[in-house]
Amino acid sequence: MRKILIIGAGKSSSYLIKYLIDKSASENLEMTIGDVNLDNARALIGSNSQVKVIHLDIFNAESRSTAIKNTDIVVSMLPARFHIEAAKDCIAYKKHMVTASYVSDEMQALDEEATSNGLVFMNEIGVDPGIDHMSAMKVIDSIRDKGGKMILFESFTGGLVAPESDTNLWNYKFTWNPRNVVVAGQGGAAKFLQENQFKYIPYHRLFRRTEFLEVEGYGRFEAYANRDSLKYQHVYGLDQIKTLYRGTMRRVGFSRAWNVFVQLGMTDDSYTIDDSANMSYRDFVNAFLPYSPTDSVELKFRHALKIDQDDIVWDKFLELDIFNPTKMVALNKATPAQILQKILMDSWTLSDNDKDMIVMYHKFGYELNGQKHQIDSTMVALGEDQTYTAMSKTVGLPVAIATLAILNKKITTPGVQIPISKEVYTPILQELKSNGITFNEKEVPYLGYNPLNV
Amino acid sequence: MRKILIIGAGKSSSYLIKYLIDKSASENLEMTIGDVNLDNARALIGSNSQVKVIHLDIFNAESRSTAIKNTDIVVSMLPARFHIEAAKDCIAYKKHMVTASYVSDEMQALDEEATSNGLVFMNEIGVDPGIDHMSAMKVIDSIRDKGGKMILFESFTGGLVAPESDTNLWNYKFTWNPRNVVVAGQGGAAKFLQENQFKYIPYHRLFRRTEFLEVEGYGRFEAYANRDSLKYQHVYGLDQIKTLYRGTMRRVGFSRAWNVFVQLGMTDDSYTIDDSANMSYRDFVNAFLPYSPTDSVELKFRHALKIDQDDIVWDKFLELDIFNPTKMVALNKATPAQILQKILMDSWTLSDNDKDMIVMYHKFGYELNGQKHQIDSTMVALGEDQTYTAMSKTVGLPVAIATLAILNKKITTPGVQIPISKEVYTPILQELKSNGITFNEKEVPYLGYNPLNV
Repeated sequence: MRKILIIGAGKSSSYLIKYLIDKSASENLEMTIGDVNLDNARALIGSNSQVKVIHLDIFNAESRSTAIKNTDIVVSMLPARFHIEAAKDCIAYKKHMVTASYVSDEMQALDEEATSNGLVFMNEIGVDPGIDHMSAMKVIDSIRDKGGKMILFESFTGGLVAPESDTNLWNYKFTWNPRNVVVAGQGGAAKFLQENQFKYIPYHRLFRRTEFLEVEGYGRFEAYANRDSLKYQHVYGLDQIKTLYRGTMRRVGFSRAWNVFVQLGMTDDSYTIDDSANMSYRDFVNAFLPYSPTDSVELKFRHALKIDQDDIVWDKFLELDIFNPTKMVALNKATPAQILQKILMDSWTLSDNDKDMIVMYHKFGYELNGQKHQIDSTMVALGEDQTYTAMSKTVGLPVAIATLAILNKKITTPGVQIPISKEVYTPILQELKSNGITFNEKEVPYLGYNPLNV
Repeated sequence: MRKILIIGAGKSSSYLIKYLIDKSASENLEMTIGDVNLDNARALIGSNSQVKVIHLDIFNAESRSTAIKNTDIVVSMLPARFHIEAAKDCIAYKKHMVTASYVSDEMQALDEEATSNGLVFMNEIGVDPGIDHMSAMKVIDSIRDKGGKMILFESFTGGLVAPESDTNLWNYKFTWNPRNVVVAGQGGAAKFLQENQFKYIPYHRLFRRTEFLEVEGYGRFEAYANRDSLKYQHVYGLDQIKTLYRGTMRRVGFSRAWNVFVQLGMTDDSYTIDDSANMSYRDFVNAFLPYSPTDSVELKFRHALKIDQDDIVWDKFLELDIFNPTKMVALNKATPAQILQKILMDSWTLSDNDKDMIVMYHKFGYELNGQKHQIDSTMVALGEDQTYTAMSKTVGLPVAIATLAILNKKITTPGVQIPISKEVYTPILQELKSNGITFNEKEVPYLGYNPLNV
């Protein structure tokens, strides 16, 4: 029997646990799930009696080290900042480790010890980061293998609602942490490369510099730039690339409307409003508009943002009921972002029958024999219900598959790493495909910048 | 003989020193000027042989304490962060102290010791802060004395060029630290009170929410909100006020054009541009615009900001020569704000014969016997040349007058303070008046918000 310890039985663990339970007989797996909330874990294993559920508080050194000592590999599905406690024990007791989170500096610092102990510390193996790394590197490597030279790479991911559940004017519902959506793009100018030129977009312009993307069978999307498109330039081997852009996908029209919140200052998370507890939604909106004894908040809003009365953007704000004078904010000393989040959660929370959707779009531009070429690669994953969501599938499946591949010694290169090598992405992408997560890759005319070399 | 030690003989010390030299015979003053640069000090005293000039490095404890021991009062004209060294010695050797700077937390912490030793530590007694405090409190106190109730206070100050030197399309030149102008308004939303409602303006909207102000004989100005209009609410005794707004004055049209820099992200001081050393002005502008193989930077700029070709705003940017492809930034790893500052200094640096101007505008709204009233108070100070500037006059004269008033025991209340009491502002405003700094106060119809009580 090979022993797997999964720490954290939250939202994104459902598919991970299901996949490993399904494989436990054929693969001889003995699973333990540790969480501070035993009910979470029990709900996810259902009637399966062979999975052990234990109380595990990551900050309790004794219960943590006992559990880690008794396993072969540790999967941490905790929030990213908690991994490091488990990671240090994994070094101490010589266990492999898998997480879906960004490599923190603390995690990176364990690289030498992990490597010298022959331990695989696989990170960023969820959806974004994760599936994006693997599906991109597969195409990039294949272009290089045939002698091509990468000149453009653009990559976009979006967590959205499935078309059948897409029932509001924003074409958007919260399928993940709402707070991240409200503060998305803050903290500095977005930076990227276009035809060898560094480009910068300040936060307050981010949602007005979008581009469109068509996904076969799913219609049109738009994307706004991520803060740092250059993060993986070096590790992807793209130091010489001319265009490098990473972005977030939404349905067309979302960004133009979202920009209104940004312009007014409603997404600001840097200060608190003293009297927020006693504000109505209408008062909140009015705090960002000039005083008038007579003009309505509605007209001041439309005037400030130059919104015509027959503009569909206007209906989006009415739909959110932000001008309601009786709905109360009822949050004590909250930031504008916290208040906006609350207002949006009224409208954008998934209903019981709603399904989510993950969309990914890569563009690869390259030169081969003096010609410019482009490959577009797209993926759509749909959720089944509110437990088996597209998000938990695309996060949990690659984690589960990587865990098995490490146990089965298909992935052996030790060290703190992300899934960008053939050794890692080949078996995982293959297994993802048999689980319905497939990329549609096709050659298209080169549509990058400056195709005619003007 | 009464001894005065002035530490710092920089730009703003010219009038201060001149005023005290002129009074030295009649007032029996013995002046010492300490600076790390003796030439600075000597230039300001001219042929006067009775003023001592000494080398004084504020961080050299021995020379500092020797100089402070041997004086009756210390005037620190150093940058604000350096006052505290002198202030601690003033406590130790029981000397009064005067500065034109904001009261720092460290300075405030000396209040108890200053008070118990009978020492006057007068701060914020320059122009803004300083003359604004005094001229405002005089009117506020007179309104209270006649039984009026303050309902509105708005206060605006601007450092500009004198009309005769106002020779560019922006009607602006740098008369003080250019960096402060470039980053003005950054760091958080502007907050103020309008008719009992808190209002917030995010930085990227600040320069589009201006209001106009007419100053008799000087025409029209505009003002944008300061970050914290509520800073002095309590100390001015305005806890119950309905409208409280502080702002910065510019000539009309400046803010609309400046907003273009804000929108593009050119005022951002939070990140550096790697290749700034080798950028032309044109490259810098282009970094904030989308890539195009064919479209000009000019057209992309006008399109992004929706600037018509016959809009005067466009000529303002041409005047700055920001599209020049041969003028180089030549700053190593500079922030956008640093680069913009360099570009602006090409155009906005004062010429030898240029004169500056300080403008101040207060509005006081009050209720008396059930009626609403308003008093507007304005002040304009003009510079004489590049040494005797309006800035150094409005900063240095109140400092000098306060210093004498403390020596002459007209100001006696001890402690760390700002000039808001009658004891302080009455003699100083009177003496400022005889030196040409006068406020034009007049009753006007109440033009505050909601005059008709709708």
